[in-house]
Amino acid sequence: MNQLFKNMHWTSSLRNSRATLFISSHKSLKFCNFSKDHKDQGSWELMEGLFHCSANLVPLTPLRFLERAARFCRERTSLVYGSLEYKWGETHQRCLKLASSLSQLGISRGDVVATLSPNVPAMYELHFAVPMAGAIICTLNSRLDASMVSVLLEHSQAKILFVDYQLLEVARSALDLLCKRTSSKLPILVLIADSDSDSTIDTSSISYEYEMLLANGEKGFEIVRPKSEMDPISINYTSGTTSRPKGVIFSHRGAYLNSLATVLLFRMDLFPVYLWTVPMFHCNGWCLPWGVAAQFGTNICLRKVKPKDIFDNVTNYKVTHLGGAPTVLNMIVNSASFDRKPIDHKVLAMTGGSPPPPQIIAKMEELGFTVSHLYGLTETYGPGTFCVWKPEWDLLAPQERSRLKARQGIPHVGLDEIDIKDPETMESVPNDGKTMGEVMFRGNTVMSGYLRDLKATKEVFKDGWFHSGDLGVKHQDGYIEIKDRLKDIIISGGENISSVEVETVLYNHPAVLEAAVVARPDNHWGQTPCAFVELKEGYDDMDSQEIINFCRDHLPHYMAPKTVIFQDIPKTSTGKIQKYVLREKAKALGSIS
Amino acid sequence: MNQLFKNMHWTSSLRNSRATLFISSHKSLKFCNFSKDHKDQGSWELMEGLFHCSANLVPLTPLRFLERAARFCRERTSLVYGSLEYKWGETHQRCLKLASSLSQLGISRGDVVATLSPNVPAMYELHFAVPMAGAIICTLNSRLDASMVSVLLEHSQAKILFVDYQLLEVARSALDLLCKRTSSKLPILVLIADSDSDSTIDTSSISYEYEMLLANGEKGFEIVRPKSEMDPISINYTSGTTSRPKGVIFSHRGAYLNSLATVLLFRMDLFPVYLWTVPMFHCNGWCLPWGVAAQFGTNICLRKVKPKDIFDNVTNYKVTHLGGAPTVLNMIVNSASFDRKPIDHKVLAMTGGSPPPPQIIAKMEELGFTVSHLYGLTETYGPGTFCVWKPEWDLLAPQERSRLKARQGIPHVGLDEIDIKDPETMESVPNDGKTMGEVMFRGNTVMSGYLRDLKATKEVFKDGWFHSGDLGVKHQDGYIEIKDRLKDIIISGGENISSVEVETVLYNHPAVLEAAVVARPDNHWGQTPCAFVELKEGYDDMDSQEIINFCRDHLPHYMAPKTVIFQDIPKTSTGKIQKYVLREKAKALGSIS
Repeated sequence: MNQLFKNMHWTSSLRNSRATLFISSHKSLKFCNFSKDHKDQGSWELMEGLFHCSANLVPLTPLRFLERAARFCRERTSLVYGSLEYKWGETHQRCLKLASSLSQLGISRGDVVATLSPNVPAMYELHFAVPMAGAIICTLNSRLDASMVSVLLEHSQAKILFVDYQLLEVARSALDLLCKRTSSKLPILVLIADSDSDSTIDTSSISYEYEMLLANGEKGFEIVRPKSEMDPISINYTSGTTSRPKGVIFSHRGAYLNSLATVLLFRMDLFPVYLWTVPMFHCNGWCLPWGVAAQFGTNICLRKVKPKDIFDNVTNYKVTHLGGAPTVLNMIVNSASFDRKPIDHKVLAMTGGSPPPPQIIAKMEELGFTVSHLYGLTETYGPGTFCVWKPEWDLLAPQERSRLKARQGIPHVGLDEIDIKDPETMESVPNDGKTMGEVMFRGNTVMSGYLRDLKATKEVFKDGWFHSGDLGVKHQDGYIEIKDRLKDIIISGGENISSVEVETVLYNHPAVLEAAVVARPDNHWGQTPCAFVELKEGYDDMDSQEIINFCRDHLPHYMAPKTVIFQDIPKTSTGKIQKYVLREKAKALGSIS
Repeated sequence: MNQLFKNMHWTSSLRNSRATLFISSHKSLKFCNFSKDHKDQGSWELMEGLFHCSANLVPLTPLRFLERAARFCRERTSLVYGSLEYKWGETHQRCLKLASSLSQLGISRGDVVATLSPNVPAMYELHFAVPMAGAIICTLNSRLDASMVSVLLEHSQAKILFVDYQLLEVARSALDLLCKRTSSKLPILVLIADSDSDSTIDTSSISYEYEMLLANGEKGFEIVRPKSEMDPISINYTSGTTSRPKGVIFSHRGAYLNSLATVLLFRMDLFPVYLWTVPMFHCNGWCLPWGVAAQFGTNICLRKVKPKDIFDNVTNYKVTHLGGAPTVLNMIVNSASFDRKPIDHKVLAMTGGSPPPPQIIAKMEELGFTVSHLYGLTETYGPGTFCVWKPEWDLLAPQERSRLKARQGIPHVGLDEIDIKDPETMESVPNDGKTMGEVMFRGNTVMSGYLRDLKATKEVFKDGWFHSGDLGVKHQDGYIEIKDRLKDIIISGGENISSVEVETVLYNHPAVLEAAVVARPDNHWGQTPCAFVELKEGYDDMDSQEIINFCRDHLPHYMAPKTVIFQDIPKTSTGKIQKYVLREKAKALGSIS
């Protein structure tokens, strides 16, 4: 085609034109103006005809998912909890009535409503009802003690606290503490009862009971819609293991986008059946209270996550998806055989929260689950990356498959970019699978900020990227792999040792049920790896030297633990191993030499 | 739980707080301010900590899909066209180079670049490369004549026209016409050649050839990203059958959202194989040039849509999805048996553009396709609703299944609302399956407006809803069903007759290949139905009275056609039946009595 090529011409005669438009809320039927860049009016007329009004520009919000499910799948099952079952029409009505009651209680735009509850139906409903009243849902971790609950209630300025009957004492003590500290109005306490909770409850300081409060609402309630899609929808406090807890703010826009991205990442077809093994108080259940509604699915609620209940529900309701930290998977693979049931349909188990040992993935798959791996932080609305499985990998050996699957993978479709960078120079690390850097995120599914902590917000958004605090590498195919939390890395004789890599080897030892590796001070090396190991039943006579030798056989010498301590592994309510507890313990052991 | 219920209290003491935030572009690393509503400062401090910068607020754009596919699926096949095959890494590089060349030609933010081409690889690449240069892609219908092309080039002020070698004469004539009318600079003509097009092409007035232009670009080109997500990404001219054509403007935001909504609506898992039977010039191929990239799929490009090619490609490449107007499906079901191949994997055929006769759906499924039905308009970025199939419907009789499947269904997840309303009163019609009203849309996947036609834009957005011009009913389950275009409805003796319903009966007659029903003037009744029928081979001796009698047997008497004319049915390039042509013909017949 060479003969067709002509000289370049007409390179700079074109006029430059642009339009800058703002998105805000447009509830009225009036046409609204758009902003015009006065510096650059060249061919502004090009854009004539553009108009934005309620017909074509509305704030993104996951609240629409519920309304859509109620309208078009009114008679499909929305939620199952023991013998209780709701349809989407009912769930919608209940949420409207609850929102109405909240409104009658004075809750309005921007107020915070807190919860302290396991995954009971009320938790699901509150994820819609609270924002439907214009308010912000703040789901507190159900394992917190009264002191921490009181701190978070004060920090969030929550006006109402919904509390499960089993956590009533914690809530009451928290209010007592709060009362002593502040003269502000205390949050209203609303009790979430359960079928077996009637008779024994001490009702003092309780203002309302959930079902009664709900019954009092009006089903014709007009939803308080977000004025802007950037309006906050929820606050999630990070576990705050080492520092003071931070209130991560999610927006309606981010929640909408992360719900859809998570649905796609879960490869969730229409009508999924989702088993609630991830706490809804954890990153709003990875945005899936909203996502399941978007796909007209069925939510199977669980008060407690036990292997028998998982197998029973998975087989009874033909569960299609469940999620959980690797420790939840570990609980499943180490369950008693009489608790198990054969699984004869596809169940996708999404794991995240910490890097899953490849062995656990392999064992889950032997039990009939398909494991997929995601990664994210509270600050990224939960899921941010996932390990996309390429069909050609099916042909690899099982061990190789599990190794690939343990990588954190690639950003979901709602994120703009992820990268691994040197946090000092902000330069990207090479795709060599070796050079470590900090995992950084950019995109609309990154939090709006930390509530009332501008300093921490600015710090974590330094240089226009969200700094995750996780250390990882980039592989040749672009997939990322987390090597450690920044604060969990062990530096021994100037070498970085990934605690995750040492743990992976430990899991290969037949006696090891769970393992966690932290740094122990060392006069010579600075730090050395110290392994905490929980043994399987029947291995009580295991000695630490055997474990150390096993690690030396499978790791470079300097990476093998110098100390092995047999004990139960402490965990957070979301199943994350509490490394800071172990680190304290290792520190208390003193320096080795 | 009655005893727990207390009196309502504390109803209005809560402070009202809100935040209004604007989304605009944030390329810099600086933190940007948010707008504050000064009328309402009650508990503004609640929001302290909120910050928006490039880490957490970026313009939504489908351009990221390509970058993500290139980064993480570099070696996966992006596109196949005959013997040509590209990987995602190559497609990305080619688009960057093409964008660079456009930029070198002087194309910048807000400029319009037009195309006149069938579904060849260049069309796919231009859907990314043009917006990557900051410009707006305007894909002209490849069946337009020179006169209309010249009108649209003038109206869009296109700076460049990419033209397929087979359409070169049309383009050249259009430029000649344009030259006579205007003193403005003519668009640069870029030739899209093909493997067999070398020798015969007259190169006069061609400035560049596509591959040479592309080769001249730099792969390190820095993408001109949208400053705001509301920046236009494309212009699609509606077919303009009866009125002057309108340039429908899509935004980056809408394109991003509709791409994901369409992926979900197509129930498209990762790695789909998409056969391009829907023209990319038609609503930007239902946003799937972008959507397929989002799911790391493979695009199978086709210059012409012929049954043999469809069957060959479907079986060769294990196509998972294809789309087309009902006439495309009709072509498949009426194909010669020697053109067919047995289909032994799941192929989802999405049909839209006009209501599919249930018989065609049934026959497609006999051939091994799974048919799903969507509905939308150019103004809704293509797909807007889809007929969600409920699993329990599998048990119904085939005829009943096809009837349900022929309904237009429910809004996809990117829309805010659809409704059927009386356009005068704006009241919703009841869910009775009978009362007709106009289908109206609201949401972020409704166009930004008609280019340089403020009047038409305002008209179609009257009362804050997009007025589709389609007439439909709402069924009891909330699903909508289109009965007719507003202008296609036949009013006979004061009764509305849906031309679609009469056509559905006609398709049940064994001799009927295709049918279209329009109004014929009638002195007594005002109008009566006039059927145009294309007969199948071997039915040449069919007489019109038999068709009329057949209709009378299956329809209320007044709905049966009074006139039947045997002839080929005229269609647009997208397979839509040109009813206005038939209406003119029926009018020319004169009044019946």
